[in-house]
Order: sequence, then C-alpha cells, then structure tokens
Amino acid sequence: MSRFLSRKFETLKPYTPGEQPKATGRLIKLNTNENPYVPAPAVSKLINSHEINDLKLYSDPDASILTAAVADYYGIRREQVMAGNGSDEILAFIFMAFQGRSGKIYYPQISYSFYPVYCDIFKAEGVEVPLADDFSVRPQDYFGADGTIVITNPNAPTGMALSSAQIEEILIHNRENLVVIDEAYVDFGAESVVSFIERYDNLMVVQTLSKSRSLAGARVGIAMGNEKLIADMNRIKFSFNPYNLNRLSILAGAEAMKDRRYFEETRRKIMDTREEFVKDMESLGFRILPSKANFVFASSHAISGEEYFDRLRKYNIIVRHFKDKKICNYVRITIGTPEEMNVLVQATRKILG
Amino acid sequence: MSRFLSRKFETLKPYTPGEQPKATGRLIKLNTNENPYVPAPAVSKLINSHEINDLKLYSDPDASILTAAVADYYGIRREQVMAGNGSDEILAFIFMAFQGRSGKIYYPQISYSFYPVYCDIFKAEGVEVPLADDFSVRPQDYFGADGTIVITNPNAPTGMALSSAQIEEILIHNRENLVVIDEAYVDFGAESVVSFIERYDNLMVVQTLSKSRSLAGARVGIAMGNEKLIADMNRIKFSFNPYNLNRLSILAGAEAMKDRRYFEETRRKIMDTREEFVKDMESLGFRILPSKANFVFASSHAISGEEYFDRLRKYNIIVRHFKDKKICNYVRITIGTPEEMNVLVQATRKILG
Repeated sequence: MSRFLSRKFETLKPYTPGEQPKATGRLIKLNTNENPYVPAPAVSKLINSHEINDLKLYSDPDASILTAAVADYYGIRREQVMAGNGSDEILAFIFMAFQGRSGKIYYPQISYSFYPVYCDIFKAEGVEVPLADDFSVRPQDYFGADGTIVITNPNAPTGMALSSAQIEEILIHNRENLVVIDEAYVDFGAESVVSFIERYDNLMVVQTLSKSRSLAGARVGIAMGNEKLIADMNRIKFSFNPYNLNRLSILAGAEAMKDRRYFEETRRKIMDTREEFVKDMESLGFRILPSKANFVFASSHAISGEEYFDRLRKYNIIVRHFKDKKICNYVRITIGTPEEMNVLVQATRKILG
Repeated sequence: MSRFLSRKFETLKPYTPGEQPKATGRLIKLNTNENPYVPAPAVSKLINSHEINDLKLYSDPDASILTAAVADYYGIRREQVMAGNGSDEILAFIFMAFQGRSGKIYYPQISYSFYPVYCDIFKAEGVEVPLADDFSVRPQDYFGADGTIVITNPNAPTGMALSSAQIEEILIHNRENLVVIDEAYVDFGAESVVSFIERYDNLMVVQTLSKSRSLAGARVGIAMGNEKLIADMNRIKFSFNPYNLNRLSILAGAEAMKDRRYFEETRRKIMDTREEFVKDMESLGFRILPSKANFVFASSHAISGEEYFDRLRKYNIIVRHFKDKKICNYVRITIGTPEEMNVLVQATRKILG
C-alpha cells in the first residue's frame, strides 16, 4: 500500500476474476462462463476499417443505437435502458447509489462473489442471506427487508433459478426497497422479469451481453428499470465516466441484440449441450444442481472438488473451484461445445478410474 | 430522482460532455479536442474478423500488452503502469482513493470541469486555486498544500503549460501529498514528467490515448507512478470493474503506442497547423493564449465568445464555449486539419465583416 491511499481502503480485498491464461492453445477453458460460439456474424461485418478509423472520434455517451436495440428487443422504452462497461460497472453504480436509508444491501450468502467487494468499496452493510439446504434461494427470506436486495437469477455458481412469480412475490413484499435482479444467465432457460419494470418502480434488472450474446470481451452490460431509476443511473454514470462504452462495443452490442435468429440458435445449442452433459455426468455418479445457466455446479462422493479441479487441469481442462467451505466440494463447469464437453466427460471417466 | 437514490447524491450535478452531434456529415467538429487523423495504420490491420470473433472471450484484466507497450515507450516498468477505460475512469479512481488525511483535493479554478464533479460524487472537499491574471498556473500557490493536488498540464481549456522544472518544484514542496499531473495534452508541445516517477513517490501521471494517439472512441487511459501507487490503483480497479478494458481497445492502444513514427508525424502536423492557425487568428485581431495543446483558447474585442460560437455554428463549425463568467468571452477551438482551420478562418473573416 502507498502512503497516500485513503485509510478506508486499507483493508479492501479486491474481487478475484477467474483465471485468464495467456496461452489458451491446447486448453479447454470452461472456467469463466464464456460462450463457445462467436458473436453474431453481422458483428465482424460491421466492424470494418472505416469504423476502426472513426475511433479518432469520441463514442456516443448515450450509446443510443445499443440502448435502442435493447429497448426494441424487450418492447420497452429507451428511457428505461442504460448501458454500462460490462454488468460489473452497472452493479458498481448500483451498490454506490442505492444503499437505501439503512445502508444495508441483502444478497444470497452463496452468489456472485463480487457483491461483498462492492459493499466494502462503497461502505454499504452487506447482509448475507443463507440459502436453503438444497442451495435454492427462498423468496420469503427477503420479504420486508430494510434495505436494497440483490439477487442473481439464475444464481451463480449454483445455476438454480427462481420463477418470475417468485420474484414478483419479493417485489410485492418490498415496495419500499429497491430489488435488483441480476439476470446475467437468464437466457439459458430462466424467466426474465424485464416486463415487470412497468408495474414495479422498485425493480432494476441487470443483464450482460457477455454470456448469451458471446461478447464477454466487448464489455457490455445493461440496466433496465423505471425511467426515474435509469435517470439516477445516468446521473451516476455522467459523474463518473460519461463515455463509458467505446465505439466498437456499442456497435457490436447493438448488432448482437438485433440478430434474434442467431441468438436463439446459439442459446438453444448451449441448453441442449447442457442437458446431454448433465446426463453423462450423472451416469458417472456426479450430483448436478438443476441449472438454468450456461454452467453447472457439480460434485461427487468419489472425489473432492479441489482434487477434481486439479486432475482436470492435467488434462488441459480448466473449470472453476471456490475455496469457501460451503461449496468447496463442487466445481463450476461452463457449458462449451458438445466436443469440449465430451473431452471433459472422457477425462472424468479416466480420473475416476 | 427515484425514491431509492441515496440522499448523498440528491444534489449531484453530472459533468456535461461536449456536444456529440449524431449527424456529422457537413459539420466541422472542433469542440471536443479529437485528433483529425485516423489511428496508426496497424490498428485497422490488427482488428480483423479473428479478433472480433474472439470477443466471445473475456479481455485480459491486466491489459498486459497495452501496459507493456506503454512501459516500453517510456522506459519504465510494467508495475508502474495501469490502464483505464479512458482517463476519466483513472481520474475517478484517483478522486475516490486518494483524498489524503484532510479529504481535500486542490486543483486550478479554471481547469478540467470534471474535477469538481468527482469531488462531489466521492465527497472530497475540492479546493479551487485561482489562476494568475494571465491564466497561468502559479506553482507556488500549491506549495505545502494539505491534501491531494491535481493539475492538468497543459491546462484545459487554456492550453498553457508549466515546465517540468516548475512541476518538480510542486513535487518537492509536497512530499507528504499526492500530486497528480493530468497530461492529456502533453504530446502537443509540453514536457512530460513521467521520468520523475522514479524519484518522486508522490507523483501520479495520467495520460490518455484519446488525443495524440487518435483513439478517443476506444477509451484508453493510462496511470503511471510508483509501484505502490499503481498497486493501490489496481486494488480499486479490481474492486470496481476488473475487466475495465475490452479486447479491441487493448489491441488498438498497444498498437498506437508502438507506432512511434506515425505518432511523431501526426502530432507534428497538429502542432504545425496550430502555429499557422494562431498567426491567422492573431492577424484577425484575436487574442490566443500560448497553447501547448491540440486546441487554442481564443477571444476578441470585436465579438463576444457566445456570439462567435453561435455565428460559427451557422457555418457548420462547432467549437466549445463555457458559460463560466471568468472565461465566457473565450471559445476553445480544437486544432483540426489545415483545411478545416482555413474554413474556420474564412468564416471568421466573414463574421467580423
């Protein structure tokens, strides 16, 4: 630490992103929930040398073509959409700006491990709500909270989802609290609550184009909600980094939203691969939590999570393992191509001997 | 404002970016200090469909190839460099993290108008230090401050620069304070103090690739300083948005740093154009502050700043005018191509009748 860092950040523990190996040549990378399919074909057509030369000019601070494409996709108004430099930036703005009167932010004890880091940096009081024994989020645990509520749906790293009816119950029982639903993985089989933003002014939906739109490397996140909430988000953005999206990511994001056929085709492939993979792993004795995401959370009585992680690595397969003792016996496995999943299943068969 | 925004942001007044007109066809856009020349030729060669398809993968959170290229350019170590989503994000991190023991941040009264906004959002006490009557920054006004010091050099919107010796005086007289030198425009004729980071652990240098590297639309900013300062900056970044740079901007930024010849050639053209333009405007009776930036700050006894701004707009020429009464008689004019500046000079001649 330098002599100059403000004391309140002395104990700040940053988020640890999943490993991004520099040389990925022979590696099957199933550790950060990336999409195995390339972005919509129009993306690489549109980003031509003319657009690249136009990088000399600032980007549109409103990212208008992108927010318009998102609004169009969901049949909402542009004033109900705001774009961020990845959904991590959107979440950072939310934890900064919406701490409620109590300063408390409620979220599941097992969830996106960035939430406690945001609480720390923005000095909110994080309240971790335990999951049920089966790892599900219990809606009633959030009824009548006295602070902001943040729920990833489907949850990570479990992949388990609440229904939109269950989320509506949380909204109804928290009229005075902001409820943030982080739908990073919603397109892989769960129900989005975007359509609820008209009815509930206490709802903010966060999405990302990193997963179902194959744009993790472009950094495009989306917030959707009531006009006033979105105006608040823009007030924070324009006080922090008005040009938060670069020109090429705005273009790529808008195109990825427009190509509905490619989107349907690729997310369907991933869901189909997941169902096949789950069957294969169950036949090898693994327990797989019911997943509506592009990853599964898997454990086995025959091998510890850590050992399984280490052994897969020797086969050049990288998955994610968490040290937290409530989940240390699991590994999180991203759904790749059918071929990649088959290699993993074969390796697992050898590991289990 | 929504019911949910934290009270401390109720009065937050966001930064107003320079106008970004959607249709720029016939417009000569000299209002946001963009570079008139396209990025280094290698940029559009490198961003091919292979790279665009790889947007499905996360970017490198360390932006290694970019920080390595910057370190190589300046002959410093990679641990002394950190990359941001534009220098605005870097500045936001600085105002968040380095408020000193007093919570005060000193900056020139006339300077980048984002500084008071950062103070507001991060609840620092901004101390505005008046300029001298000739609009210059007086180093001695910053000696022995009791807080962080932020100075844009060359300053905006004046274009006037301190010498590196003058900045060293500020560093020497503030051993216990962080001194941030925002060198957004340094490549157009001023002296960088990057080489001082070895000697002064209280120095942070901020740069951007938006101006002299023609990458405003790619959003690439740079912080350079002592390893410990950079480690602090990374601690903030990894607690806020680890993947803050997208894949294509990292590539573009690295290439723009590597192509020294193109950089020298284009910045030289802009400086030459500036000198010609200053002569032309002076011959029309304008007063131009001595500029080391890619813009000039101009005023005339014959026409008010606001009227001149309005009249130029009718010729489809857009420059920047500030309402603040200390500078409302000036306009800030970006240096474009020689042809663009000639059109502006001809229009000015007609406006003055």
